[in-house]
Amino acid sequence: MIQNPIPWPNGAKCACAITFDIDADSLIHVARPGDSHNRLYPISMGKYGPDIAVPRILETYKRLGIKQSFFVPAWCIDQYAPVMEKILEGGHEIGHHGLIHEDPIVTMGDRQRAAFEEALSIYKRVCGGKPRGYRAPVYNITPQVVDLLIEHGFDYDSSLMGDDIPYLLEKGGNNIAEVPVHWGCDDWPPFAHYEEIGYVNHVQPPSVGYQGFFEEFDAQYEAGGFFMMIVHPFLTGRLARWRVIEKWLENTMATKDVWFARLDEIVDHMRSLEQSGEYTPRKDILPYYPEQVIRAEAAE
Amino acid sequence: MIQNPIPWPNGAKCACAITFDIDADSLIHVARPGDSHNRLYPISMGKYGPDIAVPRILETYKRLGIKQSFFVPAWCIDQYAPVMEKILEGGHEIGHHGLIHEDPIVTMGDRQRAAFEEALSIYKRVCGGKPRGYRAPVYNITPQVVDLLIEHGFDYDSSLMGDDIPYLLEKGGNNIAEVPVHWGCDDWPPFAHYEEIGYVNHVQPPSVGYQGFFEEFDAQYEAGGFFMMIVHPFLTGRLARWRVIEKWLENTMATKDVWFARLDEIVDHMRSLEQSGEYTPRKDILPYYPEQVIRAEAAE
Amino acid sequence: MIQNPIPWPNGAKCACAITFDIDADSLIHVARPGDSHNRLYPISMGKYGPDIAVPRILETYKRLGIKQSFFVPAWCIDQYAPVMEKILEGGHEIGHHGLIHEDPIVTMGDRQRAAFEEALSIYKRVCGGKPRGYRAPVYNITPQVVDLLIEHGFDYDSSLMGDDIPYLLEKGGNNIAEVPVHWGCDDWPPFAHYEEIGYVNHVQPPSVGYQGFFEEFDAQYEAGGFFMMIVHPFLTGRLARWRVIEKWLENTMATKDVWFARLDEIVDHMRSLEQSGEYTPRKDILPYYPEQVIRAEAAE
Amino acid sequence: MIQNPIPWPNGAKCACAITFDIDADSLIHVARPGDSHNRLYPISMGKYGPDIAVPRILETYKRLGIKQSFFVPAWCIDQYAPVMEKILEGGHEIGHHGLIHEDPIVTMGDRQRAAFEEALSIYKRVCGGKPRGYRAPVYNITPQVVDLLIEHGFDYDSSLMGDDIPYLLEKGGNNIAEVPVHWGCDDWPPFAHYEEIGYVNHVQPPSVGYQGFFEEFDAQYEAGGFFMMIVHPFLTGRLARWRVIEKWLENTMATKDVWFARLDEIVDHMRSLEQSGEYTPRKDILPYYPEQVIRAEAAE
Repeated sequence: MIQNPIPWPNGAKCACAITFDIDADSLIHVARPGDSHNRLYPISMGKYGPDIAVPRILETYKRLGIKQSFFVPAWCIDQYAPVMEKILEGGHEIGHHGLIHEDPIVTMGDRQRAAFEEALSIYKRVCGGKPRGYRAPVYNITPQVVDLLIEHGFDYDSSLMGDDIPYLLEKGGNNIAEVPVHWGCDDWPPFAHYEEIGYVNHVQPPSVGYQGFFEEFDAQYEAGGFFMMIVHPFLTGRLARWRVIEKWLENTMATKDVWFARLDEIVDHMRSLEQSGEYTPRKDILPYYPEQVIRAEAAE
Repeated sequence: MIQNPIPWPNGAKCACAITFDIDADSLIHVARPGDSHNRLYPISMGKYGPDIAVPRILETYKRLGIKQSFFVPAWCIDQYAPVMEKILEGGHEIGHHGLIHEDPIVTMGDRQRAAFEEALSIYKRVCGGKPRGYRAPVYNITPQVVDLLIEHGFDYDSSLMGDDIPYLLEKGGNNIAEVPVHWGCDDWPPFAHYEEIGYVNHVQPPSVGYQGFFEEFDAQYEAGGFFMMIVHPFLTGRLARWRVIEKWLENTMATKDVWFARLDEIVDHMRSLEQSGEYTPRKDILPYYPEQVIRAEAAE
Repeated sequence: MIQNPIPWPNGAKCACAITFDIDADSLIHVARPGDSHNRLYPISMGKYGPDIAVPRILETYKRLGIKQSFFVPAWCIDQYAPVMEKILEGGHEIGHHGLIHEDPIVTMGDRQRAAFEEALSIYKRVCGGKPRGYRAPVYNITPQVVDLLIEHGFDYDSSLMGDDIPYLLEKGGNNIAEVPVHWGCDDWPPFAHYEEIGYVNHVQPPSVGYQGFFEEFDAQYEAGGFFMMIVHPFLTGRLARWRVIEKWLENTMATKDVWFARLDEIVDHMRSLEQSGEYTPRKDILPYYPEQVIRAEAAE
Repeated sequence: MIQNPIPWPNGAKCACAITFDIDADSLIHVARPGDSHNRLYPISMGKYGPDIAVPRILETYKRLGIKQSFFVPAWCIDQYAPVMEKILEGGHEIGHHGLIHEDPIVTMGDRQRAAFEEALSIYKRVCGGKPRGYRAPVYNITPQVVDLLIEHGFDYDSSLMGDDIPYLLEKGGNNIAEVPVHWGCDDWPPFAHYEEIGYVNHVQPPSVGYQGFFEEFDAQYEAGGFFMMIVHPFLTGRLARWRVIEKWLENTMATKDVWFARLDEIVDHMRSLEQSGEYTPRKDILPYYPEQVIRAEAAE
């Protein structure tokens, strides 16, 4: 079912990654900048992530012996610096996730560059070094951000939905890897209830909300593909939900031949196969469209 | 339960069609014309359709030996011309689906005619000949479009919900066939998560999202009716979802007496029965209402 | 669990009513009065009700030997007059449901009276006589409408949610019966997909969409209460959905001691118990509030 | 899974509370202040709570011998005073829930203080004494409200989501307890269908709507934590739904070692452990942010 499957290390049938976006309370500050400091309920809902959920998640990872990727807006890296240290101590990866979860479609041009680079300097101060991967807030990566990623030597982005497995984005003669996301494996639709951000859905029971994720895994496993969850500590790190994920992890590790890895490791693996000529990744050339597709007059 | 069931070829108990609307990234260009070229996430989400999903779907169809219908906006026909060639090589049908998925309620009058006919000329250039069928973007067919369909010799429309089985639309003394759709068999409600288009629903698990479709099939099968899915490659062509459909197809073909066909074949069949006097389709006379139903003052 | 259950005829454990609101295409004309006549998709979706679904429903009722209530906007009574005749021939009841499904909260004052009474005169012309019951479009009955119901000698309203079983509304010394509705037994939330009216939910599978209804029935049956579905032919009369209801009806009639009746019969029964002193209905005195509850300045 | 579990009385494995917010029809008066007195449908939907559901709930509590907490806007306390008396007679607790369910984020400053204190004086007149706990309407507690709680000697708030178990909020050197809520145990998402307040979801079947709640309980029970439902009589007190809760209560009390208690009792227990040095609650220092987090210019 997958045209060009990547041969995984040690003959594993599938590569898997659980990626947590630690947005914490950045979301309400962006959604309601005028009075978010007075909105204690969404602040507390977000803070549950780094304060309560992340230690729980790290404990599970430690017990199971896996290392995974986290994406964190720089403002959150700063606010919750001790949590970042614990993540790094566990051997996990922290990627760039904007300055304060600002939508890159909104902050274009000079402002985008300034925010992107301020985030890098906060990252360096708290985490040391620089991130190898990036995920755009609300997935809204722009061509300008791709340029910034290339300029700053990033190895990969993880914001697009163009394939089931990692592929390449080429722009201006350079390329970076793309580790694709998918709405069917994102915990926002089943679990977010956040009126200030436009979500008033039924909150799914833990046993139901991840059912689709696990069916995606089963399909990817059968096809020798790649399975990634895009989840948030304040949602998926809640007690009853994390039990579901934890049990799935335990069961999968015990019964399946799966490679759980950080995204940077997955990208390194693909790149090494590419260099040795064992594998040729699919490549998308950017920009898809150099200018507006529908001319102003036609668009009404 | 169906008043005037159509006798299907070879005594089949039910006619079935899987119809894919390949909207690809046209949707974001229409939804956000000002900056859609910078919105890489929805572009990539849409491109997954022709790039990844359609080859997968065609492979299944080939293996199972069925031919089906696709509806494609002309802009997508042009952008993804090699994919169209593969569809046609497989013996499938490509129908008219607007110029770039513009809503016909918005583009009325001269603009509608121009878009409709520009789409025909792109179709001719890429696909050869002209389409026999039409499906309106967002189902919003207007009386003007019905006139255009009749003027250009179309055989059928597939945008309305007035019956369970194909029927006729008569306007100005001419008629075309209507192959009716239904929200209960459209993959947009269970699977689309597309904030820019107003969809922020829970994304259903693959095994759940099509459950209602299959119950519709069971009811139509029992009644000797007609069952059609209205689906999109970027949604239904995702790996785990397509496995569900594929298995249903395999199981249904193995255990039921069903006629899987292109919509043009289904219409031809109904028309030949009509000509031989074996069957009289139900007919709706258009326009339903020559002018506004609620006068301006009454409507506030 | 019910404080003052009504003793039902012949010792039945529960009274049941399936009430269909035949809104047909009135909904789109009210939602988009400027161009609804050009919107063939929602027109056809609505017309499915009287054209395809109502004959199906009447056939089931006839086979099972039950008589039920329908509520129809007068404009639809006029447009689909032959369908109304068939309903009345079957011994069913047709109630007042506005002139063209206008929201009574919007059309207050003289306009409300004019619409209400024009509906009565259309009713008289097509159906003969006058309706005994009323259901407000979108349930939005106002005190003014209650006055009109009393003035015109109506026996009941069915728009409110103040109890599990029928009760009384008193206003200005007179009273009428209230046969209460409930969102948990309305087919709009599980099945409507109607962007023009603000509904873009997942369309539930037929087997799932009525599950909550049937649980409500089970609870009412156990408590000796009253169970009513508020459904629409264009939704619940679809083939696969009506099969679910039909099977539930068959099974319930075969295995339970239930009184299926028209709402006017249910109200007559309660009134006769009231007159004989065997039962005292709960009574709400209107208006609940003679004027605005939150004064303008306090409401911002 | 819980870092610092609270030892519960008599070795119980989990503390549980069912908290009902009796908002009644206050919601529609706040949502549509201009004409809510004419909106009989939402008024009746809300009145079902105190009129029909609360007596049912109290009967269950009495039979099972448990005492629980209710939160009621003062306007509702006044309107439904006899219901409040019955609640207090049953040994239950009534907490502060605003004056008329006004959103504290909207009513800041002098208006907030005035509303808060007017609510206290209504409470005193109807209920006697003063409330020990507070829950903010729509959970939107502000730093100003925390100050008011401390100033008026409240023992706890129950509006935030920062932890699984009770913790402390410190502000200006004083602290009160926080008994945290969670969207996964709130009946609004699965059951509210209230267009005037922006909710048009599918109404979940009773057996499905609480499934997630019970999974949360199971997880908390296993971890020795705290489980609280945040429910509303007009939703959860409906017949079929209350049967689900009642059966769960009966089954849980029969088979598990759980402490069902009022929130004030739970807070008292935690405080007594704190004083005896047996337990140190986690503490959050307020304000989280003394001023706007994103400066005006950066926020666009």
